[in-house]
Amino acid sequence: MIANGRKLKTGRAGAATSTVPVISLLTDFGSADYFVGAVKGVILSINPAAQLVDITHEIPPHDIEAAAFTLLASYRSFPPSTIHLAIVDPGVGSKRRPVIIKTAAGTFVGPDNGIFSYILDQVDDYDVFHITAEQYFRAPVSNTFHGRDIFAPVTAALSNGERPGAFGPKLADPVVLPSLKPRKQKQGLQGRIIHIDTFGNCITNFTEADISENPEVLVKGKRIKTFKQYFTAPRGSSGELFGIWGSAGFLEIAANGKSAARLLHAKRGDPVKLVTSHSQA
Amino acid sequence: MIANGRKLKTGRAGAATSTVPVISLLTDFGSADYFVGAVKGVILSINPAAQLVDITHEIPPHDIEAAAFTLLASYRSFPPSTIHLAIVDPGVGSKRRPVIIKTAAGTFVGPDNGIFSYILDQVDDYDVFHITAEQYFRAPVSNTFHGRDIFAPVTAALSNGERPGAFGPKLADPVVLPSLKPRKQKQGLQGRIIHIDTFGNCITNFTEADISENPEVLVKGKRIKTFKQYFTAPRGSSGELFGIWGSAGFLEIAANGKSAARLLHAKRGDPVKLVTSHSQA
Amino acid sequence: MIANGRKLKTGRAGAATSTVPVISLLTDFGSADYFVGAVKGVILSINPAAQLVDITHEIPPHDIEAAAFTLLASYRSFPPSTIHLAIVDPGVGSKRRPVIIKTAAGTFVGPDNGIFSYILDQVDDYDVFHITAEQYFRAPVSNTFHGRDIFAPVTAALSNGERPGAFGPKLADPVVLPSLKPRKQKQGLQGRIIHIDTFGNCITNFTEADISENPEVLVKGKRIKTFKQYFTAPRGSSGELFGIWGSAGFLEIAANGKSAARLLHAKRGDPVKLVTSHSQA
Repeated sequence: MIANGRKLKTGRAGAATSTVPVISLLTDFGSADYFVGAVKGVILSINPAAQLVDITHEIPPHDIEAAAFTLLASYRSFPPSTIHLAIVDPGVGSKRRPVIIKTAAGTFVGPDNGIFSYILDQVDDYDVFHITAEQYFRAPVSNTFHGRDIFAPVTAALSNGERPGAFGPKLADPVVLPSLKPRKQKQGLQGRIIHIDTFGNCITNFTEADISENPEVLVKGKRIKTFKQYFTAPRGSSGELFGIWGSAGFLEIAANGKSAARLLHAKRGDPVKLVTSHSQA
Repeated sequence: MIANGRKLKTGRAGAATSTVPVISLLTDFGSADYFVGAVKGVILSINPAAQLVDITHEIPPHDIEAAAFTLLASYRSFPPSTIHLAIVDPGVGSKRRPVIIKTAAGTFVGPDNGIFSYILDQVDDYDVFHITAEQYFRAPVSNTFHGRDIFAPVTAALSNGERPGAFGPKLADPVVLPSLKPRKQKQGLQGRIIHIDTFGNCITNFTEADISENPEVLVKGKRIKTFKQYFTAPRGSSGELFGIWGSAGFLEIAANGKSAARLLHAKRGDPVKLVTSHSQA
Repeated sequence: MIANGRKLKTGRAGAATSTVPVISLLTDFGSADYFVGAVKGVILSINPAAQLVDITHEIPPHDIEAAAFTLLASYRSFPPSTIHLAIVDPGVGSKRRPVIIKTAAGTFVGPDNGIFSYILDQVDDYDVFHITAEQYFRAPVSNTFHGRDIFAPVTAALSNGERPGAFGPKLADPVVLPSLKPRKQKQGLQGRIIHIDTFGNCITNFTEADISENPEVLVKGKRIKTFKQYFTAPRGSSGELFGIWGSAGFLEIAANGKSAARLLHAKRGDPVKLVTSHSQA
C-alpha cells in the first residue's frame, strides 16, 4: 500500500523486511491502573527488544464489538509480521478459550469471544490455535488477570519466533460476532451502524463494493442523498447530514459541524438501508 | 516466574538476559500537557536506545500513597534490570531529597517522600543513594520541573551503565509510609483498605500468608464470608459482597457487578478486620 | 544542556550521537479511537526500528495554538535529530499544504497551518519544504486521514535517512500565528496569556530577557508584585497570586494552592502588562 521511496528497505507492498518484532496492544484496561504496565513488563521480561505500540486502552469495559471494530480499522496499517494482543475479556477466569489466530495480514492473540471476528470475515485464510501449553504461562496464573499471566507471555514467546502450533492444538469453531456483510433485499441492501466514533460519526457496514450509482441512505427515518469528500466540505448548512467514505473503509454518516449520532438519536446496531435513487424505496 | 519456552533466551525465573535497558515511568503529570514528552525527550537525548514503558501518568495529583501502591502492584512484572522512574512530587523545588534505590528486583529513581516505601517493605535488601552529583543534571535546573531536569538525566545515565554510587552518597533514613503489614490483635488481624481501583474493588493489605481457615472479613459494619475465584463467578445476586485474591497479591473486597467501594461508602484508609469463623469477633 | 557523565556517549550539549531515529507525536486524535495506532502502524511498516514517543494526543480538537505552544515547550528536550510529527489539522482534505521544516534543533512534519510557528520564531534558520512527492504516500490517500496516509509515511521515510528536499520544493511563505514576542509600550511591555495548563497556571509570553528590576504584572485588573521560586513556596495565604518562572521558559501567573485562571477569570489571549515598580502604570 505504501509506495517505495528510494532508500526505504521495504518488501512487498511497502512492508518492512526488518526483524524488529512489533506488538500492538488493545484493551479495556484504561490508563489509570497498573494493568497495562504489568502486561508490558511481562512481555519485556521475555523479549526486551519488542516494539510495543498501543492502539487504545479506552475500549468501553467488556465491549467486544467496539474492540473488534477498532482492531479491524487499524490492523492493516501495521506490518503483516505484527502480533496484535487484544484483551477485552469479560469471561476471564471462566471456560472461554485463549487463542492465537495466524493470518497473512497479522497474528492475533486474545480470548476466543469474537474480538477477532471481523478480521476473520476479511482475510482469505487463517488458522486458530487453542492456547493450552502451560509451560509458557506466568506462574501462578491468577484468576482475574490472564492478560498478564497468559496472553502477555504467549505473545512475547511468539515475538521471539515460537510457532503458533507450539502453544496448543488447532481449533475449528472460533466464536464469531454477527457478520459485517450487508444483506441483500429487494430494493437495496440492509446494513447497520457498527460504530460511533468520538466525533459522533456513524460508521455503517457498507463498503465501496456495495455502492451503485446515485445511492441513497435511509437511517432513523431520514433520507440522505448528499455525499461529500471530506468533513469540512465548503457547502452545506450546519447540521446537514451527509455520507462520506471514512478512513476505516466504510460509509460513514456525518453532520456538518455536529454529531450525526446525536442528531439522529442513533446507537450502534441501528439499521441502515442503502438504495439507488431510481429504485424509490 | 515465567516458564521457559524452548526458544526463549531467558535466565533465572524467566528474566531476560538481554541488554536492552527498560525504563518504566509512573507520574501524576496527566497526558494532556507536555510534561511526559519532555521527560522522555531528555532520557532519549542521553540514551536513545532505551525501552520506555508507561505504567501510568494518571495518579491523582500529589497522591504519594496511590503511586506507591501502583508501583508495588506492577514492579515484579518487569525484568529486574528495569529502572523505575516514579515522580509524584508535591515537594518539588523544596529540600526533599532526590534518591536512587537499588534492589535485586529493580532500581528506583524519584523523590524521597515514601513513594518507594511499600517496595522497601517487600525486598530483603536495598541501598538508597542521595542524588547530589550536579554534573548529571540538565542545566539550568528549574525549580518546578525536576522530573525533566534531574530525574530524567539521572535515569538515562543509570540506563547507560553508570553505578548508583556515582550520583551521591548512601542515605540511611529514607522516608517511609505507614507499613502495609496488618497488626495482630486478640481476635485476628487489623488491616485497612490501601487502594480502590477503577472498578470500585477495595484492595486490602491482607496477603495469603495472613489467611487461616474459614476467614471472615469485617469492613464498614459488614461481615463477608463469601470468597470467590474470579469476578464473574456464576453464583450470587447482584451487589453481593465477596472477597477475592486480586492480581496485585492482596485480598480484595468486590461486589457482584457493582462497585464495592460505593456500596460500602469505603475510602482508602478505612479499617478492615480479618478473623476466623470459629473466633466470633 | 545535559552535563556529560563519564560513561555517556554524548556529543555537543549532551545530545546523543546514536543512530536510533526518534519520532515524537503530537495530535488532537484523543486516545480512544484507532487513529494514533494507525499512524504508528504505518510508520513501523516503513521503519520498524523507530523510537516513537507520544508528546500528547489530548490537544483540544482543532486547537492549533494549543498544539503550537505544547510543541514549543517540549521540542528542546529532545535530541536535535528528532522528527516531530504534529497533526492538528482542521483543513484536512482541503488545499492547505503538508510541509517538512528542517531546523538545527529538530525536523518537523505536519500541516502548514501555523502549528510550527512559535518554533520558527525561536530558531535562527530553517527551510520549509512543500510535500508533493506522491510516491511516498500510502495509496489510496483518503480525504479524511492524511495523518495515516501522507504524514506518517513521509515521517518514516525521513527517519530512514531520506533528504527533506526529496519530498517537494522549498516554500517561502509558511503560515504563521501572531508572534510570541511582547510589544514595547511607553510604560513597559504588552504581552498576553498564551496557554493555561491543567493546574490553572497562566503562561504568558514574557521571557527572562523581558524582565528588568522590580517587575510588576498587570492582568485582569490585578497587580502582581510577588515572585516565587517554586509552587509550594512556604509563605503566602491560599489563593494569593504570584509570578513564577515556568519550566517552558515563560513567566507564569500562579496562585497558592488554587487555579490562577479561575481566580482571574482568565482565558488564552487575555492581555498582560509588564512594568517596573518605579514606572507606575
